[in-house]
Amino acid sequence: MIHFNSDYLEGAHPSVLKRLVETNMEQSIGYGCDPYCDIARDKIRVACQAPEADVQFLVGGTQTNTTVIASVLRPYQGVICPVSGHINCHETGAIESTGHKVIALSAQDGKISAAQIAEYVEWHRNDESMEHIVYPGMVYISYPTEGGTLYSKEELTAIRDTCLRYGLYLFIDGARLGYGLTSDQADLTLPELAHLCDVFYIGGTKIGLLFGEAVVIMNPVLQKDFRPMLKQRGGMLAKGRLLGIQFDALFTDDLYFQISRHANDMAKEIRNVFVSAGYPLLFDSPTNQQFFIIPDDELAILAKDFGYEYWERVDSTHSGVRFAASWATTPEQIEALRKAVYSLK
Amino acid sequence: MIHFNSDYLEGAHPSVLKRLVETNMEQSIGYGCDPYCDIARDKIRVACQAPEADVQFLVGGTQTNTTVIASVLRPYQGVICPVSGHINCHETGAIESTGHKVIALSAQDGKISAAQIAEYVEWHRNDESMEHIVYPGMVYISYPTEGGTLYSKEELTAIRDTCLRYGLYLFIDGARLGYGLTSDQADLTLPELAHLCDVFYIGGTKIGLLFGEAVVIMNPVLQKDFRPMLKQRGGMLAKGRLLGIQFDALFTDDLYFQISRHANDMAKEIRNVFVSAGYPLLFDSPTNQQFFIIPDDELAILAKDFGYEYWERVDSTHSGVRFAASWATTPEQIEALRKAVYSLK
Amino acid sequence: MIHFNSDYLEGAHPSVLKRLVETNMEQSIGYGCDPYCDIARDKIRVACQAPEADVQFLVGGTQTNTTVIASVLRPYQGVICPVSGHINCHETGAIESTGHKVIALSAQDGKISAAQIAEYVEWHRNDESMEHIVYPGMVYISYPTEGGTLYSKEELTAIRDTCLRYGLYLFIDGARLGYGLTSDQADLTLPELAHLCDVFYIGGTKIGLLFGEAVVIMNPVLQKDFRPMLKQRGGMLAKGRLLGIQFDALFTDDLYFQISRHANDMAKEIRNVFVSAGYPLLFDSPTNQQFFIIPDDELAILAKDFGYEYWERVDSTHSGVRFAASWATTPEQIEALRKAVYSLK
Amino acid sequence: MIHFNSDYLEGAHPSVLKRLVETNMEQSIGYGCDPYCDIARDKIRVACQAPEADVQFLVGGTQTNTTVIASVLRPYQGVICPVSGHINCHETGAIESTGHKVIALSAQDGKISAAQIAEYVEWHRNDESMEHIVYPGMVYISYPTEGGTLYSKEELTAIRDTCLRYGLYLFIDGARLGYGLTSDQADLTLPELAHLCDVFYIGGTKIGLLFGEAVVIMNPVLQKDFRPMLKQRGGMLAKGRLLGIQFDALFTDDLYFQISRHANDMAKEIRNVFVSAGYPLLFDSPTNQQFFIIPDDELAILAKDFGYEYWERVDSTHSGVRFAASWATTPEQIEALRKAVYSLK
Repeated sequence: MIHFNSDYLEGAHPSVLKRLVETNMEQSIGYGCDPYCDIARDKIRVACQAPEADVQFLVGGTQTNTTVIASVLRPYQGVICPVSGHINCHETGAIESTGHKVIALSAQDGKISAAQIAEYVEWHRNDESMEHIVYPGMVYISYPTEGGTLYSKEELTAIRDTCLRYGLYLFIDGARLGYGLTSDQADLTLPELAHLCDVFYIGGTKIGLLFGEAVVIMNPVLQKDFRPMLKQRGGMLAKGRLLGIQFDALFTDDLYFQISRHANDMAKEIRNVFVSAGYPLLFDSPTNQQFFIIPDDELAILAKDFGYEYWERVDSTHSGVRFAASWATTPEQIEALRKAVYSLK
Repeated sequence: MIHFNSDYLEGAHPSVLKRLVETNMEQSIGYGCDPYCDIARDKIRVACQAPEADVQFLVGGTQTNTTVIASVLRPYQGVICPVSGHINCHETGAIESTGHKVIALSAQDGKISAAQIAEYVEWHRNDESMEHIVYPGMVYISYPTEGGTLYSKEELTAIRDTCLRYGLYLFIDGARLGYGLTSDQADLTLPELAHLCDVFYIGGTKIGLLFGEAVVIMNPVLQKDFRPMLKQRGGMLAKGRLLGIQFDALFTDDLYFQISRHANDMAKEIRNVFVSAGYPLLFDSPTNQQFFIIPDDELAILAKDFGYEYWERVDSTHSGVRFAASWATTPEQIEALRKAVYSLK
Repeated sequence: MIHFNSDYLEGAHPSVLKRLVETNMEQSIGYGCDPYCDIARDKIRVACQAPEADVQFLVGGTQTNTTVIASVLRPYQGVICPVSGHINCHETGAIESTGHKVIALSAQDGKISAAQIAEYVEWHRNDESMEHIVYPGMVYISYPTEGGTLYSKEELTAIRDTCLRYGLYLFIDGARLGYGLTSDQADLTLPELAHLCDVFYIGGTKIGLLFGEAVVIMNPVLQKDFRPMLKQRGGMLAKGRLLGIQFDALFTDDLYFQISRHANDMAKEIRNVFVSAGYPLLFDSPTNQQFFIIPDDELAILAKDFGYEYWERVDSTHSGVRFAASWATTPEQIEALRKAVYSLK
Repeated sequence: MIHFNSDYLEGAHPSVLKRLVETNMEQSIGYGCDPYCDIARDKIRVACQAPEADVQFLVGGTQTNTTVIASVLRPYQGVICPVSGHINCHETGAIESTGHKVIALSAQDGKISAAQIAEYVEWHRNDESMEHIVYPGMVYISYPTEGGTLYSKEELTAIRDTCLRYGLYLFIDGARLGYGLTSDQADLTLPELAHLCDVFYIGGTKIGLLFGEAVVIMNPVLQKDFRPMLKQRGGMLAKGRLLGIQFDALFTDDLYFQISRHANDMAKEIRNVFVSAGYPLLFDSPTNQQFFIIPDDELAILAKDFGYEYWERVDSTHSGVRFAASWATTPEQIEALRKAVYSLK
C-alpha cells in the first residue's frame, strides 16, 4: 500500500531526525528559550531578510492559526478569509472558540481579492447598523491555498495595500509555504512574502519535520506579549528545543526549499500519470497537491493499493480526489502508481 | 416628522405603562423571583398550553439569543441558521463571542428548509474529516423572519421532525412573534408553535413593552440551570418585577394579539398607500414590515417628513426601503403618509 | 411587611417615572443615539467636569462590569480586584466567561491598597515563569465597596498612581456611587473621582431609576469602539432613550445626590435603632447599608415583619445581617422597625 | 554545567527514541487514528485494568488540562482546585480563557480534602444568591501535586465519594503520575487511581517521552465527542502516530514505572546530599522533586555549576529551591553535586 493521501504521512526528513537523535541527551531549559531555538530564529530571520522579526515556534497549524488570530483581534472584530479557508472549514470552530467570527468571502480558485476586501469594509463602514455588525480586524489567507493555488505578487501586493488602507492586519497561513514558494508558478520569494504581511508562518509539519510551525511576526505592534498567548493557548512546548533543533536543520543548506522543490517535481509526475492516461483535472494546481476526476469503479480498483484523499463528488459515477506528493515521495512510488493507472485502461 | 423606521420607536402601550406606574412604590425582591413574574409566567404557560414550560424574562433580543444558544450548545457545536438570520448579521458576533460558530445556510424568503438542514447534517456526518468540522447542535430560525415572512405549519413541522431525527435542538426567535401569529397568512397558533420547538421567545420590546423578552423553555432538558446562565450573561434584571408586570399586562385581555393585529392592519394600509401609487414591492411580506422600491429623488422628498429604514440599493437610481407599523401606529400617521406619497406623483 | 433587604426594592423615583410617562408616546431612534441620551450625556459630563468623557448607558451592573472589562483587557490579561469584589463573588463568573481571570487580592474592609497592587505586579514581573502567569491588565474596585466602605482620596490617589506607574487601567464600579459620594466620611467629589480613574460608572438601578448604569470613559484610549462591544454583549438597549430620559431626570436639580443623601440619613437612623438597642455592628459602614449581629431567635421574630439580607453566620446562635436604606426609605418605615427592635428586649 | 532544574531537560528515553527512528519512514494516517495509537491505547487500558476507557493523546499539559476541563463543564460552572494547582497558577489563565472560573481552595501540602470540597458545595447550595455564584462542576487535583506530595488512597477515595455525592466530576492531572505511583509513600496502584476518578492523564513529557500526555477517560459520559474538542483546542497532532509510538514504547516492558522509580531513587540521593550536609528541607516531598533551604551566598556558588529551580524566598538571606531528578538523572551527576555541596562547608 502506497499512500498519497497527504503530505504528513511520514516522520521527519532524515537530516532533521539525525539532529534530534544527536542532541537527545543534552540538557536545556524549556519553553523555547534554549540556544537551538535562538539559532533557528536567526536563520529564519536571515532567510526572510527580516532582522527585526520575532520568531516563535508552535507544534501544529490549528494551534498556530488560533493563537495568532486571538492575539491580534479585539473582541468585537472578526477575521476575513476565503470561504474555503482552513480556519473556516477544518478547525472545528477553533477561531470562534476564541470569540471571533470568521467573515467568509466567496473564493475564486481558493483565493480572495483586494477588491473583495475593500468592498466588504466599505459596506460595513457605510451601513447604518455598523455597530451591530462584526468589525473586520484582519485578513487571513493561505499561501498556497487549500487547493494548492498561488497568489501572484501583484495580487498579494494589492491585498497588502488594501489592508494598510483600511487598518487591517494581514496574516498568511504558510502550512505548505515551501511548496508554494518553489512552484514554477510562484513569482514571490520568501523575503518578499514576509514583507507583504504583518505575520505569517513557515509550516514544518507538512515539509520535513516531525511537527512544528514557525510564526514570523513582522509587525512590531504584534510582537508584544505573543508569548503569554502562546502559553495560554497550549502552544508552548515544554521541550521547546525540539522545535528549535528541527527548524535549525530545516534552514541549513537550503533543505526547506530543496525538499519542497522535490515534492513539486514529484507532483508533476503524478499529474503526468493521470493526465497522460486521460483523466481530467478537477482543477489546476501548481504545487504539491494534484486533483483529478476519476470514475468510481476505477477509483475502487486503485484504492486497493493506493491511498488518496476524497475531495468531492463530481457526479453520480465520478469523484474528485487529491493525490499529494511530499518531501518523502519517491520516484518508485510514482512508478508504481503509473503502472496501476495505466492498467486501468 | 413621522417615523416608520421600526417597531420600537415609542415607549410602552398605555395599559402596560399604567401598571408600571401603579406598582412603582411597591417593594419586591429582585431577579425575577417576585410574584408579578410568577403571575406572568402562569399566563404565558396558559397562552402556550404548556403547563410544564419554564418561562424566564430578559431585557433584549441579542441578550436572549446569546443566552439561550450558549446555554444549549457544547463547545464544539455551532448553530444552524439562515444566512439572513439576526444572529448572523446584526448582533456584532455575540454568538461567536460565546465560542460558537454560526453555520449560515442560504435562505429563501429569509427561511431555511428541513431539507437543507438534513443535507447539512448528512454531509457533516459522512465527511472523513467530521471531527475537524463544527458539529451542528441546534437550529435557529425567526418567526416571522427578518423580512417579515412566515414559516407555514407544514414547513415548521418538517424542520421540527428533522431536528428530532438528527438530535438538534430547535430555537425560534420570536422578537416579532405577535406580528407573525396574527398575520392573515399565519396558519399556526401560539400553542402549536410552542409545541413545535424546544425553546422560543415572545418578544415584548417590539410589541407593546418598554422592553422585555419572555423565553419559553419547552424541553425539560434545557430548563436545568438556565438561570445562572441568565445571571452570567448579564440578562438577569435586578428589578425583575418590571418584566413580570409588563408581561402580565401584555397577556391580560388578549392585549398582545390585539395590538399585534392592529400593527398588521396598519401595515396593510401602508402597503396600499405605496402599491396604489404604483411603487413595486421589494418583496412580499405578510406582517408589520413592508418593503418598497422607490426612486432616490422621491425618497429624498419623503425623507423630509417621514422616517423609514434603508434596506438595500436596488440600482443606481432606486432604493429598497422598509416602512414598519407597530402597535402604536395610528390611522392619522398613515393618512399623512398617503398624502405625501400621492403628492410625489 | 417592610423590606430593608436591598436598595433596589421599589421602582423609580417619582420624578424619573414622571418623565418616562410624559415621553412615552414620542418617537425616537434606538440604541442610545436619541436626543435624550445626548442631553443626559452632557449633564453627566458637566457633573463630572469631564467635557471629553464618553458616556454610554447600560441596563444593569453585571452587564456593565463585563462589557467594560472585556473591552479593556487583552486575552492573556486578568483584572485585579478585592477578594470580596462583586465581579469575583456575585456575577456567576461573568468576567471569566469573557476569558479573563479575576486576580483576587485579600481585602481589608472590602478594600485593596496601592501597596498590594504594586507588590503583585512586582512579583509577577520578577517571576521566572512570568509568561506562565496571567498578566494584570487593570484594577477593579468599587466605590463604595460591597460592604459600604469608602476609599479616601489619599488611598484612591495612591492606587491611581500605582496603576499609572505599572500601565494598569483603573475601573471603578459605582453601582452605589451616590451613596458613597454623599457619605459623611467621603472626602471625594464626583469630578475628583472621575479624574482619578480611566473608566467608572454611575449606578442608577440602586439610586432612583427603574434600571440603568452610565459608564463614563475618561481615558480616550478606551473610548474607541466601546459601542460595538456594548452591542455584542447584549448591553445596547433597543429603546435606548429610556436610559437617557432617566439619567436626564437623575441629573436634574441635583436629584442624584439629594436622594443618595436621604438614603444615608435613613441608614444612620437604622444604625441608631440597632445600636441604641444594644446590637453590635458586624462592621462599620458609612453609607446606606448597615450590618448588625443579631441573635438568631430575635432575628426570627423580626423576620415576620421585616425583610433584611442574610450576610454571614457569626456563631452558632448569632447571625450577621444587612439592613439597607435607599432613596425610597421613609421615616415611617424606620419608626416601625424601631418599635419592633425595641420590643425584642 | 549539570541541570537539576526540572524533569523535562533531556529528550526522550533511548528506547522511545529508537522506536521513533525505526518507524520514521513508514506512512500512516494522521490525527491519532493510526495503528500505533491503537496499540498504545490497548496497552494503557490493560495497565489501567480499564477495558472500556477511552484513551486520547495530546502533546502537552496545559493543552490537556484545558481541553479536558472545557469538554466537561457547562458555561456557568467552574473547577475546584487547590490554590497551588497548576491550572490556577502556571497556565496563563488557560482555563479562564475557555470561560470557566478556577475555584481555588486553600491547600495543605498542596492538597485539598474531601471535607473542603463538601463544605464549598454546601455553602454554595445554601446561599440565597446561589444563582449569582459560579457552580462547581468538577474537581481538579494533581497526583503527585506541584510540590511532589501524594494523596493517600483513603484521601482520594473520600474525594471521589464526595464528588459522586455532589455530582462533580473528578479529574486527576498526572503530569508526573509515574513519579507518584512508584514513590515509597504511594499506597495506590495505577488501576486503583484510574477507577477513583472520571478522567486523568498519564504524563509522558516529564517521564521519558519527547512530549505527550495520554488522557484516560474512565466515565463513559465524558467520552462522547472528546475528539472534536481535541481538534478545536489545537491538541490533535497531525502526525498522531508520534504519540502512539512513544506511549507504546513507554508501556512496553514496564518502562514507565521502571524509569519513574529510577528518578525517585535519584531524588533520594539528592535529598541525602543536602540533608547530610545539614540543609533543611523546605518541605518534605516523597517523589522526584526535592526542596531545600539554602543560604543565598552558598546558592550563588552552587549556581555556577548546577541548575536548580528557584521556588521562594525564605528570609532575607535564605532561599527555597527545587532540585528535580528525572528518568535521565545519573549517579555521576549526583556525585558531582555531592562534592560541590560538601565543599560549601
